[in-house]
This record gives sequence, C-alpha cells and structure tokens, in this order.
Amino acid sequence: MRKYLLEDEWLIIEEGFDTENHRRSESLFSLGNGHMGLRANFEEDYSGPTLRGTYIAGIYYPDKTKVGWWKNGYPEYFAKVLNAPNWIGFKIRFDQNVLDLNKMTVTRFRRVLNMKEGVLAREFEASWPDGRTVKVETVRFVSLVRRELGVIQYRLTPLNFSGTLQAELYVDGDVINEDANYDEKFWEPVEHSIHEGYCFLKSRTKKSGFEVCYGMSSELIRIQTGEKIFPEIASATDYVNNRYVLEAKQDESLVFTKFVAVTTSRDYSDNQLRKQAIKVLENSISQGYASLYAEQVDAWAQSWKLSDIRIEGDISAQQGIRFNIFHLNQTYTGHDPRLNIGPKGFTGEKYGGSTYWDTEAYCVPFYLNTADRRVARNLLVYRYNHLGKAIENAEKLGFRNGAALFPMVTINGEECHNEWEITFEEIHRNGAIAYAIYNYIRHTGDDMYLAEYGLEVLIAISRFWAQRFTYSDPKQQFVILGVTGPNEYENNVNNNWYTNYIASWTLAYTLECIGQIRSSNPDDFTRITGKTHFDPDTEARRWETIVNHVYFPESKELGVFLQQEGYLDKEQILASDLNPEERPLNQHWSWDRILRSCFIKQADVLQGLYFFEDHFSKEIIRRNFDFYESRTVHESSLSPCIHSILAARIRYTDKAYELYLRNSRLDLDDYNHEVHEGCHITSMAGTWLAIVEGFGGMKVTNDRLFLDPVLPRTWKSLSFSIRFRGHVLAIRIERNKIRIEDTENRQINIHIGKKQYSLKKGQPIEVPL
Amino acid sequence: MRKYLLEDEWLIIEEGFDTENHRRSESLFSLGNGHMGLRANFEEDYSGPTLRGTYIAGIYYPDKTKVGWWKNGYPEYFAKVLNAPNWIGFKIRFDQNVLDLNKMTVTRFRRVLNMKEGVLAREFEASWPDGRTVKVETVRFVSLVRRELGVIQYRLTPLNFSGTLQAELYVDGDVINEDANYDEKFWEPVEHSIHEGYCFLKSRTKKSGFEVCYGMSSELIRIQTGEKIFPEIASATDYVNNRYVLEAKQDESLVFTKFVAVTTSRDYSDNQLRKQAIKVLENSISQGYASLYAEQVDAWAQSWKLSDIRIEGDISAQQGIRFNIFHLNQTYTGHDPRLNIGPKGFTGEKYGGSTYWDTEAYCVPFYLNTADRRVARNLLVYRYNHLGKAIENAEKLGFRNGAALFPMVTINGEECHNEWEITFEEIHRNGAIAYAIYNYIRHTGDDMYLAEYGLEVLIAISRFWAQRFTYSDPKQQFVILGVTGPNEYENNVNNNWYTNYIASWTLAYTLECIGQIRSSNPDDFTRITGKTHFDPDTEARRWETIVNHVYFPESKELGVFLQQEGYLDKEQILASDLNPEERPLNQHWSWDRILRSCFIKQADVLQGLYFFEDHFSKEIIRRNFDFYESRTVHESSLSPCIHSILAARIRYTDKAYELYLRNSRLDLDDYNHEVHEGCHITSMAGTWLAIVEGFGGMKVTNDRLFLDPVLPRTWKSLSFSIRFRGHVLAIRIERNKIRIEDTENRQINIHIGKKQYSLKKGQPIEVPL
Repeated sequence: MRKYLLEDEWLIIEEGFDTENHRRSESLFSLGNGHMGLRANFEEDYSGPTLRGTYIAGIYYPDKTKVGWWKNGYPEYFAKVLNAPNWIGFKIRFDQNVLDLNKMTVTRFRRVLNMKEGVLAREFEASWPDGRTVKVETVRFVSLVRRELGVIQYRLTPLNFSGTLQAELYVDGDVINEDANYDEKFWEPVEHSIHEGYCFLKSRTKKSGFEVCYGMSSELIRIQTGEKIFPEIASATDYVNNRYVLEAKQDESLVFTKFVAVTTSRDYSDNQLRKQAIKVLENSISQGYASLYAEQVDAWAQSWKLSDIRIEGDISAQQGIRFNIFHLNQTYTGHDPRLNIGPKGFTGEKYGGSTYWDTEAYCVPFYLNTADRRVARNLLVYRYNHLGKAIENAEKLGFRNGAALFPMVTINGEECHNEWEITFEEIHRNGAIAYAIYNYIRHTGDDMYLAEYGLEVLIAISRFWAQRFTYSDPKQQFVILGVTGPNEYENNVNNNWYTNYIASWTLAYTLECIGQIRSSNPDDFTRITGKTHFDPDTEARRWETIVNHVYFPESKELGVFLQQEGYLDKEQILASDLNPEERPLNQHWSWDRILRSCFIKQADVLQGLYFFEDHFSKEIIRRNFDFYESRTVHESSLSPCIHSILAARIRYTDKAYELYLRNSRLDLDDYNHEVHEGCHITSMAGTWLAIVEGFGGMKVTNDRLFLDPVLPRTWKSLSFSIRFRGHVLAIRIERNKIRIEDTENRQINIHIGKKQYSLKKGQPIEVPL
Repeated sequence: MRKYLLEDEWLIIEEGFDTENHRRSESLFSLGNGHMGLRANFEEDYSGPTLRGTYIAGIYYPDKTKVGWWKNGYPEYFAKVLNAPNWIGFKIRFDQNVLDLNKMTVTRFRRVLNMKEGVLAREFEASWPDGRTVKVETVRFVSLVRRELGVIQYRLTPLNFSGTLQAELYVDGDVINEDANYDEKFWEPVEHSIHEGYCFLKSRTKKSGFEVCYGMSSELIRIQTGEKIFPEIASATDYVNNRYVLEAKQDESLVFTKFVAVTTSRDYSDNQLRKQAIKVLENSISQGYASLYAEQVDAWAQSWKLSDIRIEGDISAQQGIRFNIFHLNQTYTGHDPRLNIGPKGFTGEKYGGSTYWDTEAYCVPFYLNTADRRVARNLLVYRYNHLGKAIENAEKLGFRNGAALFPMVTINGEECHNEWEITFEEIHRNGAIAYAIYNYIRHTGDDMYLAEYGLEVLIAISRFWAQRFTYSDPKQQFVILGVTGPNEYENNVNNNWYTNYIASWTLAYTLECIGQIRSSNPDDFTRITGKTHFDPDTEARRWETIVNHVYFPESKELGVFLQQEGYLDKEQILASDLNPEERPLNQHWSWDRILRSCFIKQADVLQGLYFFEDHFSKEIIRRNFDFYESRTVHESSLSPCIHSILAARIRYTDKAYELYLRNSRLDLDDYNHEVHEGCHITSMAGTWLAIVEGFGGMKVTNDRLFLDPVLPRTWKSLSFSIRFRGHVLAIRIERNKIRIEDTENRQINIHIGKKQYSLKKGQPIEVPL
C-alpha cells in the first residue's frame, strides 16, 4: 500500500512532485469519454519514467500470439487496444532551456483530477539550473459532449526572466506499445496535411487497417495585452505541429489553447475522416474554450446525478467510491454496442483492453442501476453481435449444431486468450453471459429483449452446455469434466459446483424463456426456432433430462457445496495460517503447489451463492461463506466485493467493511503495487456492488425490489440512487432509518427488510431500521 | 508412411535423387560416435531444402524461454544442443560450374548408410546445363575409436571434359539453429589460425561459454599418376579452408581426403584445445585413411557382436531393428557420465537434444543388455551428478529437507521445460529414475552401486514422494493430487494409478535398500545418513505409514485399475470407433477435448504393469490390457513398444507384432511425416525391448533370468545376445526350439517358460518350445 494522495470528497490531489509516483499518477489521473482516453502524461517533454498512453476505443491490433507450447485450437493473435498517436504534445523551450520536469527543480507541484467536472489540472513552478523559473498551469479534458474532441489549456509564466519562447504544439504518430509481443510497431503513417489553419495526421493500424485522423488547431494569447498570436503550421510524416516563437516577458502569462479532433474509420469511411475532424474543430473553436468547459461540467453533473454515492463520516471511503464511479463512467458510456469495458479502460495497456466476463458479472449491474437501460442493453447486444463468432469458436473445439462458446478475452468476438486451461476450460463465462440477460430483464422489465436478441444467445449457450455435459455411468448423473471455475487457482477439475450450477440454471432458464416466448410472442418464436433450427421437442426434452439429473458435489457432513469433486482430499488449512511472507501466493508458490492447495483466488461456490442467492437459505450461505472465505486469498481484484456483499447479507458487517475497503481504494492506495500499469476498471464496479447490494442490501426477486440495509460502524449515512424498471429512486440510509424517494414521482412497492412499503407520487417514505 | 529406401540387411540405401526426400535422408543417414555427430548433409554446396546439422554432445546453449503466460517456478531458459560449426564443407567448381545437385541433372545417385561399418557413402553422376558431367564418390565417418576425428574421402572424376578445378575444403563457424526461440545466433568466433599445414577455427557459445576447436588438414591425390597436391591454406573469422586449383583431366580421378579434429572445452582447458586437435590430426594422418577406415570397421564389428539382433524371414524387420540399434550405439557410448541421450540424438535439433525420462524407462535396459555395465551405470551416474540441482528444483516448488525432483527436460540438471502441467506435474519421471537404479542392480548384480551412488538418489526421491503425498481425510488414505501421468492426454489429475504406484514402490524399495545397506555396509550407511541427514527412525516410519495406506483407484466391477480417479466418468468409446480423419487426435482436436476424452496417448496403467509385471497375475494384465489398449491412440513414439511387450506376454502375438512394426520402422518408413526433423532415437530402444523382452520373453525376477519366447508368424528365427550379471548369452529362437550359449563359458541357471535349465561351461543348450 502506498499512500501519497490527499483525501478529498471530489478531487484526487497530488501535492509535490516525486518521479517515483509519476507512472502511478499517470494511471490514476487518466481521462476518458467512452470514445477515447489517455493517461495523465505530461504535455511537455518528460525524460523520466513514464508510460505514454493514448487510447481510442475499439481500435485494436491483432498482435501475433506468444505461446510456449502450441495447442490445437489456440488463437493466432491477441487483439490489443493500442497506444494511439499522441495528441497532447507541447515542446516548450526558453532560449536553450527545455521544459522537462525530470531535469528541473520542481516546486509547488499540484496535480488535481476533478471528478465532479471531468477535468485534469496541473500547476507547478520549475527552475532550470541557471535559475530561470517558470510557472505552468494546465487544464485538459476529453469532452463528454463532443466525443471526438480533446482540449488543453496551457498557461506559461516566466517568473524571473524574459527570453525567447519556442513552443511546438504537436500530434505525434510515431508511438509504440509497451505491451508488444515481438516489439513490432503497430501503426503506419497514411498522410499529413494542412488545411485552413488546421493540420492533420492520418495513421493506419497494420493488419487490422483502422484509420484515425487527428486534426489540430491552437491559439496563443498574451494575457496581459490580449494579443493573439498565430502559429507557423507544419506537417511531416507522422508529425504535425503548430510552432510559436516569441519574446516572453517576465511575469507575463502566455496561454495556449489546443483543440484536437480524433475521428476514426470505425465511425466514418476513410475519405470522410478529415472532413469530420474539420467539422469537430470548427464547431468547437467557434464555441470557445470557456463554453466547452462549461458543457463538460454540465455533462458530468448529469452523470453524477444518476450515479453518485455519498458516504458521510468516512472521507476516504467517499473519495474511493467516487473515484471508482468516475472511472467507470468515463470508460464506458454505452453509446456504441461495438464497444465494451477493458480491464484497464483508458488507463493502461495491460490485458490488451479486451472484454472479459467481468463485464457481465460486475459491470452490467452498475450500469443497469446508474444509467439509461440502453447502456446495459448495448453491453448485451455486444455479445449478441458476436454470436456467430462464438458459434465458430465452439466449432473449433468440436461442438456442433449452433452451440456457442463466447471467448474468454475478446475485442471483436474472436478468442484472444491462449492458455488451454482458461481458453478452453474456463467455460463458466458462458453462464455469466446468460445470467446477464436474466439480470437485465428482471431489473429493467424489458421483456422484449428476449425475443429481439436474448433468446438466440440463450439457445446457443444452452446447446453448448447440453453438449458439454457428459453422462457418467458410475454416477448415473450428468457431469461436467475438465473445467476451470472462477477460482483460477484450480485448473482442469471435474464437476466444479459453480459451473455445473450455472450451466444447469442456463438450461432451465432457457427452457422457461422458450415457453414464455412461445406463448406470448408466437411469431418471434417461429422466427427464432426457424433461424436457430431449434427443435422444441427433442432438444428441449434432452435439456430437461439433463436439468433433472445434474451432479452437484457437496459434503453432507460439513453442510457445504464442494467447489469441485475431490476438494476435501486437499490438505485443509486456512488463509490465516499462511506465512504472510509467502503472500500473494501467485508471486511465491509454483503453480502446481497453488493448484494442490485448498486456497481460493476469488469467489467460486460463493459466486454462485451471490448470483442465485434466493435459491439458498441464509444458513447455507453462512456455512459456505465460513468454509470458503477462510480459504480465500483474494488474489483477484474481483474477489473482495462478492465476499463483502455476502458478508453484509449474513450480517458479518465488520468483515463486509474490511473486504469493501480492499476493493474501494485498491488503486488509490496501490495495494498490489501495480497501479503504474493502469487501474482495475472492471473491479471498480465491484465496489459499487458492495455498497448498493451489500450495505444497501438491494436485490430484485420475483419482479420486486428489496432493500435490507446495514451501515458500517464508521458511516453516518449512505446515499445513492438506483434505477429500477423506469423508477429512479433516491435512497438515503442512516443508522436508524432509511429514506426513499422516487425522483420521477411514480408509484412503486418496495420491500425493506421483511416488510413491504408503498412509495407514492411525490411522497418520499422514511422507515426506521 | 513414405517408403523410398531399399531393404537390405545391413545397408540403408537410397537410389535416385529426389530433392523431396533429401531432408528425410539427412536425418536417417546421420552419423555419430557419442562425442559428435552430424546429419547426412552433402559436403558440397546444396541450394535445395536442407537442414544443416552438426552436433557436439554436451555443447549447449541456454536459449531464452518462450512462454505465453508466465508461471512462478518456470525456468528462464531452455538448454539446446546446438548446430555447431560445419566441418564437412567442400566447395567444388570446374571453371564457372559450381557443384550443386539442386542445379544439375543427377543420375546414378546412390546414398548408402553402411550400418555394419559405421560409414556413409554416396556416389552420383551430375551434369551441368553445358553438358559437362562429373562423377562423385564420397565416403565419410566419425571415428568410433578416435572420438574427436571425422574423415571424408571425396573422389571427383570429370567424365567428358577437362578444365580448371577449384576446390575449397572448409570449416564454417557461421551457423544458425533452425530451432531458436528469438532468432539469435548462438556462436561467436574466438580465433582462427594456421599451424604447420593445419588450419584451426575456434568458436565459443554465447552465454554458456563452451569453446570448440576445429583442426583441419587435407590432401589431394591424382589417382592415375599418384601425384600428391598440397593446398593453399587460409583462415579468416569464422572460416578456415584449404584451397586447391589445378587442371583436371577427363577420366582422371582426383581424391581428396579431409581430416577434421574437434576438441572441446568440455574435455580440455581452453588453451589446450588447439594442441589436442593437433595431436588428433597428427596421429590420424600418420595412420592413414585406409587404416582409420579399418579401425572403424573393427570397432563397429565389436559393437555389433554385443548388440546385433538377427531375424530370419523378415528382411524389413531385420533392417528396422539394425537401424534402431545402429542409431542407439552411435548416439550414446557411455564413455562420459556428463552425457545422455537426446530424443533426436545427432539427427536433428528438435526437443533441444535434452534428456527425458525416456533414458531410464527405455534406453537403460537396452544398454544394460548390450554393452558393458559401465555404459548403463554412467546413465545412472548422470542423474546422481544432478542430484544437487534436483534438490534445488524441488525447493523452487516448495519441497524441503533434501527432497529431489529431477527435471522433465534437462542437459545440465536444470529444468528446461515450461508447461506447468508437465514441468511441475509430470512427476512420475522421478519414479522412473528410482526404477532404473533397481533395474540396473537386479540386472548387473552390482550391489555396490547402491552404497556408492544409488541410495542417496533414492532417499532424495523418496523424500519428494513422502512430501507429495497428502493425507485425505475423506479417504483416510494417502493421495497424490494434481499430476500428469505418462499419458500426457490427461493433465492435473488426482491419483494417477501409475504415479501412486511407482511413488509407493519407490518408498518401499528405498526402505528395503536402507535396511540392506544398514546391515551389509554399516560404514556407508553412517556416511549416507550423515550426508543426507536422513533419520532412519522418524523418516522411515513415516514412509512405512504411507506405503501401507496409499490410495489406488480401481474398478472392482471391471476388474481394472483406474488410470486416475474419475476416469470412468468419461464417455467410454474405443479408439477403433474414432473417425480416421480425426487422427492423430493431437492434430485435430482441441486440448480440452483430448483431456475430456477417454483416449490415451501412451501406456499409463500399462506402463506400471510392464515395470512391475511380477506384482500382478497374467489375468490382471490381460484385463487391463484389453481395457486400456483399446482406448489408446499411440500418439507417442514410446507407446507401441510397451503394449507390444505386454501383448507378447499374454500371447496376443499378432497384436504384439502389429505394435512392434509401428515402432521398428517408424523413421525408415516415416509413419508420422516428421523424419525431416530428425529420428526418434529414444523410441528406438523400445523396438529393442519389444523384441528381447516381448518376443524373447526375457525378464529378471528375484535374481533369476527368465525367457519365455514367442515368434511372430513370419519370422523363421530370432537371434540376439544379452548380458546378465557378467554372462554374455547368445540366444537363438526358432519356431520349435530355443538355443542358448554362454559365450563367456560360465555356468548359469535360466528359466525357459516354466522350467529351469542349467547352462554349463562350453555346453549350449537347446530346449524345445
């Protein structure tokens, strides 16, 4: 854990400059708007340790796979969201002195991420060895309103000298990925041009052939005189720039404003890119910096209105949850069903920016509750659009008849991962994708989704499960052999309880959905069975047979479900017995030792009890929680939140809070010493879940909304909003009461604890706890 | 299967030149002498497809590991025996015409590997486009007597022209490996020099720092005149040569003789290499070509005397077994305990030339029976010398107190493999190393080996097993979790029967050996327990407890041992039911499908029944054979032989013969289309085993030698020699009788079938069958 940031309700603040922290801050202070984003790199030259990172959603490169021993069925490439051309560049030089904080004495350094407004600001004073000192104040944002626009205001003030300033504001296409398997370059220049005061750089990704066009414009004002200065504009292969040379006077502030438009061939045909960039620049410049800034503040205010969580009495927790919500909202905005949520968002390259089951298991509920339902719906449609490729993927593994296996890691629907025990065997991901459909519909009430998209996906996933079950003669039951469950510290096990459960549930749910569509939408039913060649008799009958005869390993003696067959053959020791010096295990133990041990990376049986809470009694949940949590080392960022929610449910409130803390400030406090590589975006959704579903006790059962709150000791109050079936409910929980208001002024019945309450138009209710 | 070679009892013959077959022939016609070897590359330039390969035993390079997803405990490098400087080179040019068979019309091409004499010969006539035709006859060998010597005789006859011949005989240090993970060069030049008519090239391997010195000398004789011509000698970085320029006359034969000495820093200090090479050259040249050739023939005659197998009535089988024996004897000669047997020997680069458990399980019995006992002993001492590193290796995986895990793949004792399911989990290899000690002692009667080397290894391996067993509470027995058995089509399984059995056997055998040494060699016992800190009370007691409570999975219903727990949960189908188009499975099925299936790559339970045959009744062997062989796809070259032996034992003679054939001509007939990469050297030992232990029915039980022969239908007779406890027994099996003679004229009791016979001095016996 490394704390160097100040606590504040709305701001992330770094005071004083330490090169050691810079890469960390670059991750934490990242900006994004769903379309593009970037790490908090300095605009000016910086010769110290840095990871330059500028990302454009959905622009990927199929990097040649690196693998030790090839296995049949491995993918040929790993799709990576790329470090894209750098548009923030400023080269600043006063006479012979280049502005580079790594070579200067820096004072009064302050970097602030204003989460409320979606703006990154920085100010500092820095001196060269000759004693000359300059003051710099910068502000930048990527517009939430104009997704293709980035704006920088850069203010320079020579504090104790006058001299010739040479400033070059540039876009640089000559960028590399730190994460490249064979040190290849991924971009090639296409063209550069100058047009009516704008300069343009067009680059193309190799192999995948995406084109991006960067249009740039800038202006400089001498603040004291109001004089506007125009640059010399130049363009060259991979580099376009605006150059200013002028006499700078002591104490006179020079303010640069740089506008950059980024258009891509994902949105327009190649020959339209420049034209579209011009449009963005013209509209933005005519609007003016101040107005663009105001727009940004407004847009973020709207976003916060829906998704903010307020915690009174715990500023650290307050900052933590807002930090998480802020990053989630700037990573994915739901405007484009071709996009999804990479584990690092726009904050780093690791994991390639691809989609994992994190989306369905962790992120969908966040967006369901905090944004228009179209946002979560687009995450579902993303998978629907990949159904064809998921069927091809399953065919590669020998499955037939329209069975689908969605990839473990993907950008465009094709599998990118290449460890057989994950790629081929961590198949529970298919279940999470089915569960997300169920979750979306129960939360929004949008039944039509099933007929339109959902049922086709459910049928294809169910076909996969039906083929993946094997009938065991000795057991006279259906088994699933050779899987990796959510707990990736077990590989190639037989009858992982969670996988068997979600597979069996998927079959049952699909059968239920088929029955529903058959009676409610007979035309859709005919269309879907025609399209999928689904045979409602033989296929459905086989699924029923399976559902009724699935083997679930359990220990009657201990009263727990068994993570997998044979789990109790392991030596049973507790995580608390481990030598702290050997933790995290994955950095100290060889893989076979981890596999042989009883230690659990993240919720596995408990993930199932979380998803299907209503199928189990509190007593069963408690017994399994006691047994498994004590064996869990939480070496996945996705682990503590699920445990925190269950702990809150069974009123292990202190445990719930302890686990919550591990999640919420994971990045801000850099628990795992890896923030320099980027933030854990998808696990941030887990923090939100831990608060709303855990401490808020929110759940939906049989179309009804339940709340069952419990506050951590230190919190005075907890307030959040949720969306549920068209309602937007503002909820405030205090130690002894809960207040609920439907901000849209409609009527709804809500269960609080064990009682039902009716919320009427314009009448918030308050219930004692 | 691709047959293009002629059948002959002693020769491998290729007639006619087809560039398609050249890489295959380069593998098959390889030469070696234990110290060095090389593929059957052409001496002269060849611009067609070729894999140039010159190898020096024990000279390796630690190539940087290639791995997809790093796991804690993986090795940093993969040691590879390298393609070494090329010493056979001849550049031949008549005026402007360069000799390059790829660009000429070739007639009368004949390549012959004379296995009886250990010599590779080639002759052909080849014409340039201008009609000039030259005849070439070459002979080369690497001396079995002078291990650092290679000799080439190269005879040129212009058939229809006269002209200027330029010939350059060279050693070239600028070589690459086809199998390099990152396309690095592995050698760097050290020096080149000329000294008293010899030229020298010294090269060093990067990282590992081995130095090799090549000394070269040559002469040329005009046959018709007897005129000797001396070359111009030159040396340059990475290239030394002898150059001849002369007028060649039509029909006049020019005979070059090239002598090359190869000395290495494995045998001498760096500054002695040239001196030693001079010594080799001087001695050899003064001996003269004819005499060196005669030496070679004699040495191979000696080798054949001990190891030859004669089969009457099946020339194809005869050629096959001699081919296998020849390669085994040229790959490993047992003169150096630092060396071992790479899967490709000196015939290719694949698998890096490293040591696998193949050595103990397959090769040791071959050398035990066909060579002085020191040969097999050195293979055992090789592992003894690596004991320290095996202990370190186990420590990396969390084992303590002197437990050893020998590497899966190694050259110098360090692990080179990096697939967790193999590296960390295919631990049965440890058992094979213990078994080889037992096998060596029962075969040779060399009890002293135990005190000198064996017991320390056994204790360390037993410590590993004792720690690797886990006590299962539900089973109230000891289990071994998370292993890969010999059948690598199962990974990370629990309670692999074979592994549990050999582990338990190792513990029991070690206890027995400890008891034996304790009483027979008390001083050694004190020394060994002191050195290993072995506690004969507590440690031995724990081992006994384990041995008495090991869990062995079995099916009482089917009367078979279970390959692993849960094997019967799989869908039970037979290999004969497989679609032939989907075979081999490893080229058609994804890995998870292979793992989930019941199909078996190579003997697993049956490997145990082979090793421990005497522990089980024929009926049990038959039941397990019936069950498992029908599920076995034999996709390892090590599979058919073990099955062939067991089939012969239970008198499935046709099946035994069918499986034998798959092994014996695997390379000659290129069953798997991979001979261009090199030959399957270690599986060649399996062919020998299939004949001697299978059809010969040879086994050793309780210090007694048993023979129980059965001949395949087509064979008239089978003759072979075996060594057993100082005896050298010549055995001839005919359809109705067996004849045995102790060629050393001593007395021994032998069991044939169910009866015991006494073999007296000078009196061969004949027993009807």
